[in-house]
Amino acid sequence: MMKVRGRLTLPTDVDMVEETLKLKERLDADALRDCDGTQMPSELLKTGAKIYATYYTTRKDNEWAKNNPEEVQQEYLITDRITATSWTLSIELMKGFHTQQLKVNTIDEPKRWWEVIDRTTGKVVPVENWFYDEATGEVIIKSIPYHQYTVSFLAFLIWDPVHMYNYLTNDWQGAEHQMTFDVRQPKTQAYVKEKLRSWCEENPDVDVVRFTTFFHQFTLTFDDQKREKYVEWFGYSASVSPYILEQFEHWAGYRFRPEYIVDQGYFNSTFRVPSKEFRDFIEFQQIEVSRLAKDLVDIVHAYGKEAMMFLGDHWIGTEPFGKYFDNIGLDAVVGSVGDGVTMRMISDIKGVNYTEGRLLPYFFPDVFTEGGDPIGEAQDNWMKARRAILRSPLDRIGYGGYLKLASEWPGFIEQIEKVVGEFRQIHEAMEGTSSYMAPFKVAILNCWGELRRWMCNQVHHAIWHREIYSYVGVIECLSGMPVEVQFISFDDVRNGIDPDIKVIINAGDAYTAWSGAENWTDEKVVTAIRRFVDQGGGFIGVGEPTACQYEGRYFQLSDVLGADREMGFSMSTDKYNELSPKYRDHFILEDIKGEIDFGEGKNRIYAQGANYEILDMDGEYSRLIVNSYGKGRSVYFTGLPYSPQNCRILLRAIYYAAHREEEMKKYYVTNVETEVAAFEKAGRVAVINNSKEDQMTDLYIHGSQKCSLDMKAMEMVWVEI
Amino acid sequence: MMKVRGRLTLPTDVDMVEETLKLKERLDADALRDCDGTQMPSELLKTGAKIYATYYTTRKDNEWAKNNPEEVQQEYLITDRITATSWTLSIELMKGFHTQQLKVNTIDEPKRWWEVIDRTTGKVVPVENWFYDEATGEVIIKSIPYHQYTVSFLAFLIWDPVHMYNYLTNDWQGAEHQMTFDVRQPKTQAYVKEKLRSWCEENPDVDVVRFTTFFHQFTLTFDDQKREKYVEWFGYSASVSPYILEQFEHWAGYRFRPEYIVDQGYFNSTFRVPSKEFRDFIEFQQIEVSRLAKDLVDIVHAYGKEAMMFLGDHWIGTEPFGKYFDNIGLDAVVGSVGDGVTMRMISDIKGVNYTEGRLLPYFFPDVFTEGGDPIGEAQDNWMKARRAILRSPLDRIGYGGYLKLASEWPGFIEQIEKVVGEFRQIHEAMEGTSSYMAPFKVAILNCWGELRRWMCNQVHHAIWHREIYSYVGVIECLSGMPVEVQFISFDDVRNGIDPDIKVIINAGDAYTAWSGAENWTDEKVVTAIRRFVDQGGGFIGVGEPTACQYEGRYFQLSDVLGADREMGFSMSTDKYNELSPKYRDHFILEDIKGEIDFGEGKNRIYAQGANYEILDMDGEYSRLIVNSYGKGRSVYFTGLPYSPQNCRILLRAIYYAAHREEEMKKYYVTNVETEVAAFEKAGRVAVINNSKEDQMTDLYIHGSQKCSLDMKAMEMVWVEI
Repeated sequence: MMKVRGRLTLPTDVDMVEETLKLKERLDADALRDCDGTQMPSELLKTGAKIYATYYTTRKDNEWAKNNPEEVQQEYLITDRITATSWTLSIELMKGFHTQQLKVNTIDEPKRWWEVIDRTTGKVVPVENWFYDEATGEVIIKSIPYHQYTVSFLAFLIWDPVHMYNYLTNDWQGAEHQMTFDVRQPKTQAYVKEKLRSWCEENPDVDVVRFTTFFHQFTLTFDDQKREKYVEWFGYSASVSPYILEQFEHWAGYRFRPEYIVDQGYFNSTFRVPSKEFRDFIEFQQIEVSRLAKDLVDIVHAYGKEAMMFLGDHWIGTEPFGKYFDNIGLDAVVGSVGDGVTMRMISDIKGVNYTEGRLLPYFFPDVFTEGGDPIGEAQDNWMKARRAILRSPLDRIGYGGYLKLASEWPGFIEQIEKVVGEFRQIHEAMEGTSSYMAPFKVAILNCWGELRRWMCNQVHHAIWHREIYSYVGVIECLSGMPVEVQFISFDDVRNGIDPDIKVIINAGDAYTAWSGAENWTDEKVVTAIRRFVDQGGGFIGVGEPTACQYEGRYFQLSDVLGADREMGFSMSTDKYNELSPKYRDHFILEDIKGEIDFGEGKNRIYAQGANYEILDMDGEYSRLIVNSYGKGRSVYFTGLPYSPQNCRILLRAIYYAAHREEEMKKYYVTNVETEVAAFEKAGRVAVINNSKEDQMTDLYIHGSQKCSLDMKAMEMVWVEI
Repeated sequence: MMKVRGRLTLPTDVDMVEETLKLKERLDADALRDCDGTQMPSELLKTGAKIYATYYTTRKDNEWAKNNPEEVQQEYLITDRITATSWTLSIELMKGFHTQQLKVNTIDEPKRWWEVIDRTTGKVVPVENWFYDEATGEVIIKSIPYHQYTVSFLAFLIWDPVHMYNYLTNDWQGAEHQMTFDVRQPKTQAYVKEKLRSWCEENPDVDVVRFTTFFHQFTLTFDDQKREKYVEWFGYSASVSPYILEQFEHWAGYRFRPEYIVDQGYFNSTFRVPSKEFRDFIEFQQIEVSRLAKDLVDIVHAYGKEAMMFLGDHWIGTEPFGKYFDNIGLDAVVGSVGDGVTMRMISDIKGVNYTEGRLLPYFFPDVFTEGGDPIGEAQDNWMKARRAILRSPLDRIGYGGYLKLASEWPGFIEQIEKVVGEFRQIHEAMEGTSSYMAPFKVAILNCWGELRRWMCNQVHHAIWHREIYSYVGVIECLSGMPVEVQFISFDDVRNGIDPDIKVIINAGDAYTAWSGAENWTDEKVVTAIRRFVDQGGGFIGVGEPTACQYEGRYFQLSDVLGADREMGFSMSTDKYNELSPKYRDHFILEDIKGEIDFGEGKNRIYAQGANYEILDMDGEYSRLIVNSYGKGRSVYFTGLPYSPQNCRILLRAIYYAAHREEEMKKYYVTNVETEVAAFEKAGRVAVINNSKEDQMTDLYIHGSQKCSLDMKAMEMVWVEI
């Protein structure tokens, strides 16, 4: 094996020159970077390490912003819903927003770009029935008593949301609020390009321009108390301006409405089934953003530098899994690794030369503080990332924030050393080959498909929410499993299911984009999946799969699933659900000793039909149901949060649904706390302990026991085969 | 006080003559009855007690049924949903039904009265695309592969469902299965009337003809293993025949469809928002059933006897809270008392001279058996019934079943003695007056209104279900509370809210008839209730009140409630719910010491708006929210199962919502396990202990303490005022 070196980026700062040099040596780092709030010391420009420079296209130039107020970035906002009690109603636009962050756009004609909606009838209030009173900041509406109204309007982002977030988090007293300008607009576009050229000229020692990011920030709106009000990492609300929207109208061939963005106040959360108009808008933005981003990347390349994109902050419109991302011509993508899912969100990106994961914790005072546990966070983060890296490796890893905080925290650098060591070990051992994958593909089916690869059921970058962890578990488990995962949309199903797919998974709450809502009343969709399963395919449902109340059923594929959910209408129908007498002997549960964790699992699920078997119950209802359907099979879970045990259950459920049980033990470890990744061409397997306790596990290769392993907590060992 | 005697009915049987006489004396019973499976001994006809005779209009005459097979009662059935895998599909009609109970009706033209539906498209399959193969009992359909189909068809009820139930429950080996005939049909109608006349002539000693009941049994369908398959106490599925349906078509002015009855397989469960056609059908049946029932009652009266109706079994179409019930001219109604709610379902009936409650347990071997607890059941039943009787008294009570079982169970007769004693005490003490009620009305709002008075959220007569107990608690609490309760429909709201109503309650699961579903998107409904609350009314929501996903909200009156439910679409919006610092001092919780029981309370409820106060939380979400709205107030609970503590919480919530807190202590007891009922005209109050433990409680009258009471478990005491 060739010794692997480098592949590591460290942050630095002007007061950390000596310490940076020491750590660079100790950790064998080959790249140094600055961060928002830190500066690259000139003493470090010639250490032999690559130099990354964060580059902000949209901010850190208040002079430009102030001189070109009409080209400051805009955001669509919606007021609270206000109920009229008489025939006129005043709605104060900025109520609940922070006037330091947002400022009503009165430059562009309100009656052209705003919308007042009667939410009681769903109808748009004609423009002659309202006006904006600039003096009071109120919209005055001719209202109907006891109807509810909203005003959708444009506002300028006079404080960049990420700058505001970092400023508030780090208590940067006295710093000027950075405004954010819209690089898509003509004057700013020319200015920014010119500025990038000058900057490249002035910074000959910078090797990598780390765009943070391009043009449009994900939606991050603060309330009047400077608390987060609305945060959507996927949000396009702050990527608008009349300039762009007129282009969109021309491209789309229909008139734009603010409602396409504000979406009843839900702002097209990824949980919403995306409307045609919103999908059009995303498409349009991708085309335009990729075109302009390419211009900037070309400038960088012209100066012999690399262009790297940070997957975060102003990433809106780049869509790394969209059709246009390739066109940008980036050298690299870097992103924050919060868990296995967010790791795959970076490492699976195509069309770049390398990917880099910024591991957690970020060196910020919110974690490196009394009561904080940065070492524990680093360990948990690495255990989740490691199993996913074994399936789809990052090329590099790195850290961000204040190096001072990390270097002064006892034991933290040792922890980084371990992580970096294991990361390099993986690259050494795999020798550029890929790990073994099951001989069939698994598909996650939802309204978004590949565009939201590894983004299903996510609210905001790996943050735990009670509402989602029982679904996120599915993709978190998959992120480190030996199966190739496709993310398919309902249109993909309508156009014909890829014959390589053997198992389709549908997981989510009813009526969300993840479950599919009205798509399940589409004859084309249900017949395609019934045929797929009947002819031998597998279907796995989690939570409220195929749910949409219609024609006597809630789960539209209740026949395939052998299950439905009691919504109150069929309580008069006796269910007679009973646990299968041999449920613990079932293939799916063979390894499982303890209770199964269904998380927030949906209640009131019952098995039905003639071909089901119940493997777990909650009172008179069921939680784990398998069903046979023609030549195919289905498996239903009420919920499946991430845990090593649930990884094993899902792996078994997939092999069971695919009817390929006999192939599962090609590479296998007996202890559910451990996993195996096989690199056949390199002739070795990695066995990882995903728990913080020591574990014994038996390794099986091609169905027979190879050896027994005594593993330390969190350990990774390699076995030659 | 006049001593109250009698008011008690006992069952008897041929082998119980001596025992009956002894018990009649001991319990001071003034009426004796037979039951299904027992006979009135001739020796008891002249004891001075009134003689009730159960009378079955529809069964116990198999000869008639066999000779008139076309007039046997029919039921609409629907097959299982079967998925086609090719271009033809056979569906076996009787699969999953019991051929001893039901027989396919091939006498009436299938193509006229049956319906084959493609449940994948919701479309009716044209009659030319299917046929019935009588030899195999299958319907053969020209199908589309992977579409699902159902057949709705008519079957004869060749075994009366209640006879079948009693037969199976009591293991009546060898008895002939009683068929059930349709008294609405011309030959049977004439025959039954004539038979009733003869019967009256032949039974001069019978004083009360206890109809059990009239013509149509509630839906009670058994499966192929003789287990209950579908049981709906409110179900009209077995009240049909082509003869009746042709009359219905004429009356309604449109063509009948089987779908109006089978309703996608839900059979118009009361949880379903009733369709116009189903409401029409109920109305038509009431008109016809009340007309024919009157004929039978007139016959009974002609012989100097009383006519009593049993509210159960064949009660369909009588609808005691409907517009036509009065017309029947009954002397009395008797029904089974399962709790306070079912007690009120009897005692609130108007248009009869007296009401009688048949208390539980029924003397059947399922309870009077090893492991059974008939005394405990009798106590629990009485504690719930008693508090409701104090608000709306029954005139009589009684028991049913095999007297032998009861008389031989140690201590059971003593328990009856206590119950009967307290029942008579109430009648003595109230002296024919009513108990004090709050000076305003409370309304329960749902799709059914008064027609389903005290029947909300019920599956089958007082049977506990996990899905409903957190809603049934609301009406169970109300059944014994000093408030007058109206049951109003959405049409009642559209037509103008009764000005006596001060508080409106909406309780139920989303999209059920109890919550209201699409009614909440009706501008007329939401504006009427907003106006009502804004002008000082109170609104109480439980579970998913006003829920219907529309225009950015799940709870359509989220403004009134200060609450909404997170359905996944607004997880990007920060909620910042926090418990009110002084929540335990709030008027609603002043008496409450321990945890609040929200039952199966809905999750993911959050407070929103500017006027809420959170009184209970579950993690980051809320469970008890009060909100002010103009001059009015609302209270929201995630669930409210019955308990003495929840009775108190609801009482306080009602006074709070009505803005009449200061009036609550007109009659008041401090201990939440106790309640008070005041009979102002009679000058006394009853204090009841609703728990099985001894309790101390202070009695307040007109706001000041009257006395302190030391109460035994379950005790009732009377205090003169």
